[in-house]
Amino acid sequence: MSNIAILAGDGIGPEVMTEAKKVLNTIAEQFNITINTKDYDVGGAAIDRHGNALPEATMQGCQQADAILFGSVGGPKWASLPPTEQPERCALLGLRGHFDLFCNMRPATLQPALSSLSTLRSDISEQGFDVLIIRELTGDIYFGEPKGRKGEGDDETGFDSMFYSRREIKRIAHLAFQAAQKRNNKVTSVDKANVLATSQLWRQVVEEVAVDYPQVTLEHLYVDNAAMQLVRDPNQFDVMLCPNLFGDILSDICAMITGSMGLLPSASLNADGFGMYEPAGGSAPDIAGKGIANPIAQILSAALMLRYSLNQDNAAQCIENAVASALDKGILTADLLPAEQKHNAKSTSEVGDYICQTI
Amino acid sequence: MSNIAILAGDGIGPEVMTEAKKVLNTIAEQFNITINTKDYDVGGAAIDRHGNALPEATMQGCQQADAILFGSVGGPKWASLPPTEQPERCALLGLRGHFDLFCNMRPATLQPALSSLSTLRSDISEQGFDVLIIRELTGDIYFGEPKGRKGEGDDETGFDSMFYSRREIKRIAHLAFQAAQKRNNKVTSVDKANVLATSQLWRQVVEEVAVDYPQVTLEHLYVDNAAMQLVRDPNQFDVMLCPNLFGDILSDICAMITGSMGLLPSASLNADGFGMYEPAGGSAPDIAGKGIANPIAQILSAALMLRYSLNQDNAAQCIENAVASALDKGILTADLLPAEQKHNAKSTSEVGDYICQTI
Ligand SMILES: CC(C)[C@H](C(=O)O)[C@@H](O)C(=O)O
Ligand SMILES: CC(C)[C@H](C(=O)O)[C@@H](O)C(=O)O
Repeated sequence: MSNIAILAGDGIGPEVMTEAKKVLNTIAEQFNITINTKDYDVGGAAIDRHGNALPEATMQGCQQADAILFGSVGGPKWASLPPTEQPERCALLGLRGHFDLFCNMRPATLQPALSSLSTLRSDISEQGFDVLIIRELTGDIYFGEPKGRKGEGDDETGFDSMFYSRREIKRIAHLAFQAAQKRNNKVTSVDKANVLATSQLWRQVVEEVAVDYPQVTLEHLYVDNAAMQLVRDPNQFDVMLCPNLFGDILSDICAMITGSMGLLPSASLNADGFGMYEPAGGSAPDIAGKGIANPIAQILSAALMLRYSLNQDNAAQCIENAVASALDKGILTADLLPAEQKHNAKSTSEVGDYICQTI
Repeated sequence: MSNIAILAGDGIGPEVMTEAKKVLNTIAEQFNITINTKDYDVGGAAIDRHGNALPEATMQGCQQADAILFGSVGGPKWASLPPTEQPERCALLGLRGHFDLFCNMRPATLQPALSSLSTLRSDISEQGFDVLIIRELTGDIYFGEPKGRKGEGDDETGFDSMFYSRREIKRIAHLAFQAAQKRNNKVTSVDKANVLATSQLWRQVVEEVAVDYPQVTLEHLYVDNAAMQLVRDPNQFDVMLCPNLFGDILSDICAMITGSMGLLPSASLNADGFGMYEPAGGSAPDIAGKGIANPIAQILSAALMLRYSLNQDNAAQCIENAVASALDKGILTADLLPAEQKHNAKSTSEVGDYICQTI
């Protein structure tokens, strides 16, 4: 029996989560597994109801669960809060930090059939690409202390601290190489070793870890070059191993150049296989409540949850196959259709229904 | 009389610099100004000859000059040096730090006529774009102390310090707003204020400075979103104001999506109008010595030098017009031509000659 904490959040979060829950129910029946889901408030909705984007009850619910299925948080209503109080930051950094979710996996795939959605030139996008970004998620300048302000007047200074320990780099690097072994045996490690001491240690430790994986090719790219290469020829990459800050930027570029962010799930794991699963896209308040949001990223996030936290690889694969079938058969929400075909768009729940039927 | 320190460097540096010098000679005659140029070693060439990418004699030569015209440095020969000893880092950070070149201006323009070169989808690139990145160049995590390593074994840590003072943010922000006033009156300030205390100060000071420029629209974007927006719709931007590290990444994305990095100059200025001028692209060792490199970025860098450090706006404009004419008339090196037209390519010196004749 598995307990899942459902944190649907704001914007399109609740409506795409409804579809993911339908899919989880269907798969549970099909595979004869017991999945208990329980809903908790998070994000702007939680600020409104409890004055806090990540209430204690939500934390406790997550603590008791085997995994967290997360929707999306944030919206214009909370955008004028000070940056540090905003739903995205509070909810995400709070959960990542508390559960030590150091391994963030963001796959970005562009299937040739959907290549026209990509924002890249057609001769580049037609080749498709399949990049897995492995982003370290609990270290780097995100959590480094000291962080703050000091001084007055023109001398007032804002400061943050970047650091990584050898231990932190090792554990994420091993996961990147292991992922590459199941894919195309290539790891591109991203750093800024020509400027940052943190990156010099990063590069050195990644090289040391690479020795254990002789069949995997390792290359190092400076982050500025990595960003350029992604918009020039993403097909050259397999696994990209990134420190937290650079991974934030590169994974968003990677998601954008697929042109179909509504398809991209992500997983954030700790050392015990506990994880939080969420779509790559945001809460999209502009289309919330209209029943047109793409539920697939949320559904594929549930599939990753089955694979990584519940050890149900077959069930995960079954969901992924049903999604592939929906894409194949053109059961698509509007975001995946060119302007002149938008009238053929399916609704959020129609896509969810199709996937449930296909399972 | 103006003295220019010429630092041609490695790879294609010397050959494109030859064309820039030809252009400077022509313009000097035409506008009746005296420009003395003197060559100094830098980069890999300087490592080979003096054991140091930025020899003392070069520093002194720059010190005595009114401006530095820089080519490009680095190449495979020096790529296995430790990151901190590599030509790019030593030469560039050394010069930036020593001369307090805090204001880096990287214009990236995609002319509709060259839109097919862009790596973006044709309906995006056909709109063209004209983005000026103003990157702070002497602060941030690049120069922040402490920076280093401590501890042993798995506890060994690499660390860097990010900070900005109100003074540093003010001076670069003013320059961004002033640049926007001469353009399309829009500044997009880039930060990561939802995570970094440095960014929170950055955002606050930029807002304070904005009050002096009521006709300029200010928006703030998180760096991850800015990177996405650049590959989705670059045409929405006018001036992008960036801290050092984020500017490094975004300016390279911006250069790449023009598809014609060989056209992009840059300027790095201090408070006295002293500056260093260099092409956006690198030393391109793969095509060095073949006479096929595009000299235009170097020539336009010389034009920016005339404008910003020598106060010769008319001369600068004259060079820019001659370059525009070359592009118009199809006097193009191979990098600007589609595969099936590469046989029409002009050589490095033919392009330089055409520009000199047109001046
Ligand atoms: C909201 C923000 C703190 C977060 C991050 O920077 O990690 C987000 O951009 C992400 O990538 O999940
Ligand atoms: C070589 C390196 C130190 C430099 C930087 O990061 O600033 C380069 O990438 C640049 O953008 O000029």
